Amino acid sequence: MEKGDPKPTVTESFPMSGGDGAHSYARNSSLQRGGLFNALNKSREAILANLDLRNPNFDRNNNIVRIADFGCSVGPNTFDAVKHIIDTVKLRFRQEDDVDDDLQDLEFHVFFNDQSNNDFNTLFKTLPKNENCFAAGVPGSFYGRVFPRNSLHIGHTSYTLHWLSRVPGENIGKQNSPAHKEQFEKDIENFLEARSEELVPGGLMIVLGLCISDGVPFAQTGKGIVMEIFLGCLIDIAKAGIISEEKAKTFSFPKYFPHFSEVKEAMERNRRFSVEMMEEIKHAYEDVDVGHELVVSVYRGLYHGVLVEHFGESSVDVLFDRFAEELTKCPLDDIKKTASDREYVIVLRRNLV
Amino acid sequence: MEKGDPKPTVTESFPMSGGDGAHSYARNSSLQRGGLFNALNKSREAILANLDLRNPNFDRNNNIVRIADFGCSVGPNTFDAVKHIIDTVKLRFRQEDDVDDDLQDLEFHVFFNDQSNNDFNTLFKTLPKNENCFAAGVPGSFYGRVFPRNSLHIGHTSYTLHWLSRVPGENIGKQNSPAHKEQFEKDIENFLEARSEELVPGGLMIVLGLCISDGVPFAQTGKGIVMEIFLGCLIDIAKAGIISEEKAKTFSFPKYFPHFSEVKEAMERNRRFSVEMMEEIKHAYEDVDVGHELVVSVYRGLYHGVLVEHFGESSVDVLFDRFAEELTKCPLDDIKKTASDREYVIVLRRNLV
Repeated sequence: MEKGDPKPTVTESFPMSGGDGAHSYARNSSLQRGGLFNALNKSREAILANLDLRNPNFDRNNNIVRIADFGCSVGPNTFDAVKHIIDTVKLRFRQEDDVDDDLQDLEFHVFFNDQSNNDFNTLFKTLPKNENCFAAGVPGSFYGRVFPRNSLHIGHTSYTLHWLSRVPGENIGKQNSPAHKEQFEKDIENFLEARSEELVPGGLMIVLGLCISDGVPFAQTGKGIVMEIFLGCLIDIAKAGIISEEKAKTFSFPKYFPHFSEVKEAMERNRRFSVEMMEEIKHAYEDVDVGHELVVSVYRGLYHGVLVEHFGESSVDVLFDRFAEELTKCPLDDIKKTASDREYVIVLRRNLV
Repeated sequence: MEKGDPKPTVTESFPMSGGDGAHSYARNSSLQRGGLFNALNKSREAILANLDLRNPNFDRNNNIVRIADFGCSVGPNTFDAVKHIIDTVKLRFRQEDDVDDDLQDLEFHVFFNDQSNNDFNTLFKTLPKNENCFAAGVPGSFYGRVFPRNSLHIGHTSYTLHWLSRVPGENIGKQNSPAHKEQFEKDIENFLEARSEELVPGGLMIVLGLCISDGVPFAQTGKGIVMEIFLGCLIDIAKAGIISEEKAKTFSFPKYFPHFSEVKEAMERNRRFSVEMMEEIKHAYEDVDVGHELVVSVYRGLYHGVLVEHFGESSVDVLFDRFAEELTKCPLDDIKKTASDREYVIVLRRNLV
């Protein structure tokens, strides 16, 4: 790459590691899992309050509820999320006498969306059986349209919107730069624009994700600390001649961790959804034993694809060995801050025109 | 396996060979392709005559047409089939002044169905872009339900229904036995039962497939001749000690090639569809140069999975080498009979209640 070349470091899509091997997302997604349960429980009340079963767009003639998970990866988190929504919809039916009878005829069409290079083969092979529930995979970036107009009743996405559609050309090599922020805002705008077309009027969109408490600088968060260590390892192995220094310097993760107020602003900017619920919450880590090894595993599950694309397969193992070594020097209390990073739970409702 | 054990030889599903390598279905499906074009052209008039755009089940409010290809494999044939149907639907809109205006807002939801061990990753990576068209993959056997009730407008399947859901326990080792016929009829019944639930009243089901002209014995057809040679090779390599004789003798393809009248009877037995068109046609081979090598390639594309499951990976290459050798002794005229085997084109319409 030419010096000063404005090309983004990565323009392709970034699926989680596929399959179910040791480094797969399927086996390294426990951190996301803890947050998912907590956030979904939070969102349950908002779904119950806002799901209008008498909305004519709810296809009550055919009794089909169409649900999509955007950025599903390969499970098991996506299966849990979808099951939680289905259970909540059923509960909503039971709450009202005049529609309770329809419950037995209700069928769910469930769509699992992710980039076309996601490992859908593994997703499909591990799909849990669920009565009255029919599954489909939907390939394509959720920053554009992936469904016909007015075809979904409930959308869901978790821990996806901090993944940028591209790394901006400027400020490469720096994490959470102003250019990253600009890309994040543009991505959210595109995401909501596409979903507003796809959801029926009155349809709900549940958005869970990672954020930083207002006033806390990124560099002082658990994620900021660990990412800094990781980027330092890149420079180390570049100096050892294993990867090019140019490549090490121009790498940044295609990610932006927004402050809660930035998420709020981005959501409120769109006029086609009303915000029915928006909360900043703490991740529920009770059942996750956060330690050095877990962080390395999570990084492998999340970034293996991005790193292989940028540095080549052979360098990535060296990089992770170095990372594991450096990370042990980081106090466990700092590591545990990763677990205390904040999350947001949002329930949007598509306006009735 | 115990002698006389009534277990079927194969009970699992049989996807075509995945990927796009030399032995993949994607690169060895030209025989199916020739037939597809001919049959789809035949079916066009029946679609145009029977697609009722004023049918309230056609979701004209949202202008979504939902199309599914059952047993899609990995392309490119499935992409051609779907494109043909989309083009025909658009043509239908243009034929009527009062709905012509809706055409620009029309969106298509296209579903590609196949067994969950089909190579959907390859399918998704090779999906052609098609404006106003949104794609999804649907894993699961089409001999059961794979969609919610009343959720599809047009279904399509080509060259799939001669694949049985299982090889019947009796008559194993013989092709096209009475037990195979019984399984075929049961499979068709299950297929139509499931589709009748999934299609909206007035919805169309296009069924293309392979058959034998009435009165011609299977053993005298091109397929019968070549299959006999193949089964002979199995016995040969069993005698050479490469596979067990027991296994060679108990193998039969999970297939049944019906006479045209058997297809007709099976279709007419179901009371939830009316038969709008049913024709026996000749395969259009103009563009396919049928020769010994092509037949071996087609067999590899179709049966590699089944054979590996029954005999193990290592025996299959030996088997195909033997098959290629034996096949050269078969006169080219007999081989070419494969090309003159017959096909059927059927258009069914889901009854209004």
